Amino acid sequence: MTNQVTFYDTTMRDGEQTIGVNFSIDEKIAIARALDEYGVAAIEAGFPAASDKDFQEVQKIAEVVEHAQVVGLARMIRSDIDAVIAATRSARHPMAHVFIATSPIHREFKLKMSKDDIIKKITEDITYTKSKINDIVFSPEDATRTEPDFLVRSVQAAIDAGATIINIPDTVGYATPDEYGAIFENLKNNIIGFDDIIWSTHAHNDLGMATANTLAGISHGAMQVQSTVNGIGERAGNVDMIEVAAAMRVRHEKFDKDTDVILEKSKELSTLVATATDIPVAVNKPIMGGNAFAHESGIHQDGFLKNRATYEILRPEMVGASSSLPLGKLSGSHAVMTKLNHMGYNVTRDDMKQIFPIFKSMAENTNMMTEADMKATMVQAGKKMVVTQ
Amino acid sequence: MTNQVTFYDTTMRDGEQTIGVNFSIDEKIAIARALDEYGVAAIEAGFPAASDKDFQEVQKIAEVVEHAQVVGLARMIRSDIDAVIAATRSARHPMAHVFIATSPIHREFKLKMSKDDIIKKITEDITYTKSKINDIVFSPEDATRTEPDFLVRSVQAAIDAGATIINIPDTVGYATPDEYGAIFENLKNNIIGFDDIIWSTHAHNDLGMATANTLAGISHGAMQVQSTVNGIGERAGNVDMIEVAAAMRVRHEKFDKDTDVILEKSKELSTLVATATDIPVAVNKPIMGGNAFAHESGIHQDGFLKNRATYEILRPEMVGASSSLPLGKLSGSHAVMTKLNHMGYNVTRDDMKQIFPIFKSMAENTNMMTEADMKATMVQAGKKMVVTQ
Repeated sequence: MTNQVTFYDTTMRDGEQTIGVNFSIDEKIAIARALDEYGVAAIEAGFPAASDKDFQEVQKIAEVVEHAQVVGLARMIRSDIDAVIAATRSARHPMAHVFIATSPIHREFKLKMSKDDIIKKITEDITYTKSKINDIVFSPEDATRTEPDFLVRSVQAAIDAGATIINIPDTVGYATPDEYGAIFENLKNNIIGFDDIIWSTHAHNDLGMATANTLAGISHGAMQVQSTVNGIGERAGNVDMIEVAAAMRVRHEKFDKDTDVILEKSKELSTLVATATDIPVAVNKPIMGGNAFAHESGIHQDGFLKNRATYEILRPEMVGASSSLPLGKLSGSHAVMTKLNHMGYNVTRDDMKQIFPIFKSMAENTNMMTEADMKATMVQAGKKMVVTQ
Repeated sequence: MTNQVTFYDTTMRDGEQTIGVNFSIDEKIAIARALDEYGVAAIEAGFPAASDKDFQEVQKIAEVVEHAQVVGLARMIRSDIDAVIAATRSARHPMAHVFIATSPIHREFKLKMSKDDIIKKITEDITYTKSKINDIVFSPEDATRTEPDFLVRSVQAAIDAGATIINIPDTVGYATPDEYGAIFENLKNNIIGFDDIIWSTHAHNDLGMATANTLAGISHGAMQVQSTVNGIGERAGNVDMIEVAAAMRVRHEKFDKDTDVILEKSKELSTLVATATDIPVAVNKPIMGGNAFAHESGIHQDGFLKNRATYEILRPEMVGASSSLPLGKLSGSHAVMTKLNHMGYNVTRDDMKQIFPIFKSMAENTNMMTEADMKATMVQAGKKMVVTQ
């Protein structure tokens, strides 16, 4: 049995549910190709029944993707399922994602269906889907607010009818990691045929716990992660694929599982989606944020220069980014000296006794010391630049 | 014993270590006052030994804060400690935060000190601090990468010398929630006098788990949270105070602890810090992001209109924000009808059979349907607006 956790990308479906995001067909093709190269296992290309445009986009993506499974989303409505079958027909590896809500609040207020109605619907519609296509993901929507025994019953019905992947959505981003892990543990203990199924996570970030919840799912048996690039998605978004992949790489000794995406292409992929959505990545976003590998304080810069691992747990090159030691009012003498010597000056510790106070007084009045500011410092200190090759 | 989890704000110290952030004294005073009104227990105002500007800022904040403790940060260096004592002297409730790294990598490469050296330093410098000030926070820096038995030894030494709050920093944002919780559990089992101490969390978001780690600390005995507004801070930032406070409110039944900050003032506080730092809050940031309470897809909008709780776990008004149902290509007929009626039209379900296809075809070609777009839809449908009062 493989020990590789795989990614199921939903940037173009759940991600496109971000307010104001509406990818063009060319953008979708570019993103699909980039995801395929990145090494995701599956690409959810859209919701074919939503509109003609969605249908055509799924169809087009099915044609261009070479390696990943291409998935269409369907409610438990025959016309939705038929649209998925038709739209993904030309894919090398087509897959259907069928969902129905199982939580009490969704049953009562949204669906107006009883528990038995839901089970019957799952059995009938997964059976119908299975007659058309082999690979089927089933999601009990709002699973984390569903009664544990009814969740087991719903999932068992889907498996018995032919679902191959079971996804457990934390639809409203409500769960904590211990709770989310416990749901998988309960399924492991109660589902007949647990080991024949690929278990999958689907986390939303409403309370800021999407990444931790996903990793908790992985710790308790999940082997596939539904996620988006840059964590785009409805409300506060879906879990961010790159965050999860990077965390697994940093903490591989803990999870005892790997992932085979090409992490070095993360920056390129993140930039592609940021451009297409016109949603910039926040500077303090984990892994892909502009500041994620920047160390400002003097204590941190000093430690970093002595041994990077004091303050850096992931080499930025591993995700296609680079680290920086921007200089400012909190920088220490050692970091300033290192920077000056990189700039071509030949500065000793002794010189720094004169230079550093000038640096500090300039830095007090500015946000960041640019190379121009550093040169001005050196002019004040009366030092000429020595250009070394 | 109180069951209130309190917040220790470090926006102006760890938060100011964000690249490019350099608050003016006026900004610091405004933020300090807003934090005091928000109800934080402590405000870390700066690192007085870092520069004259820092010293003066801490002094000024000490004068203006009415309720919260005002804290200065110090390394275990006598001049750092003396600077904190002097800078916080005029505060109603002064406090010192003294730290030293305890992890092997920091001991060996940064400090070049043995375990015994560290313990000796903790005992001497906390004893010295205690002779000058009563309230002392001690942080074993990089606690989450410190050997568990040495962490117990370090913390016990600090408590025995007079520390009143023990903070457990995940300095490099490396821990997972189960690990972070286990650290508190181990301290609970091994520290003499555990119950007389306020235990405090300090999480960084490098792997996207700061909020989950903080809540895991709270589940295992922590009663204070070190955090920043908007999650600013070194690299990917510190844990976001508002996220933690909101998560505790949403999941209060789970934590069985409350927090008494005035959550309704969150938006105001977040906006103040976003403006002062010139770092906008990401649209998909939990709780404070512009999209955090927006529901785009038709399925979500439909559920939301039937019962908000289907897709909303926190009322936006509770954090001073508002929810929205922006209309776009994924919106359903019910949501469009509701919006039209709010706009003053008098539209029935029957009318929607004609109107909805026009809406859909317009929405396919735009990102979001504005009120002007809605009016254009109605012109095409031949409906006049009925102004109802």
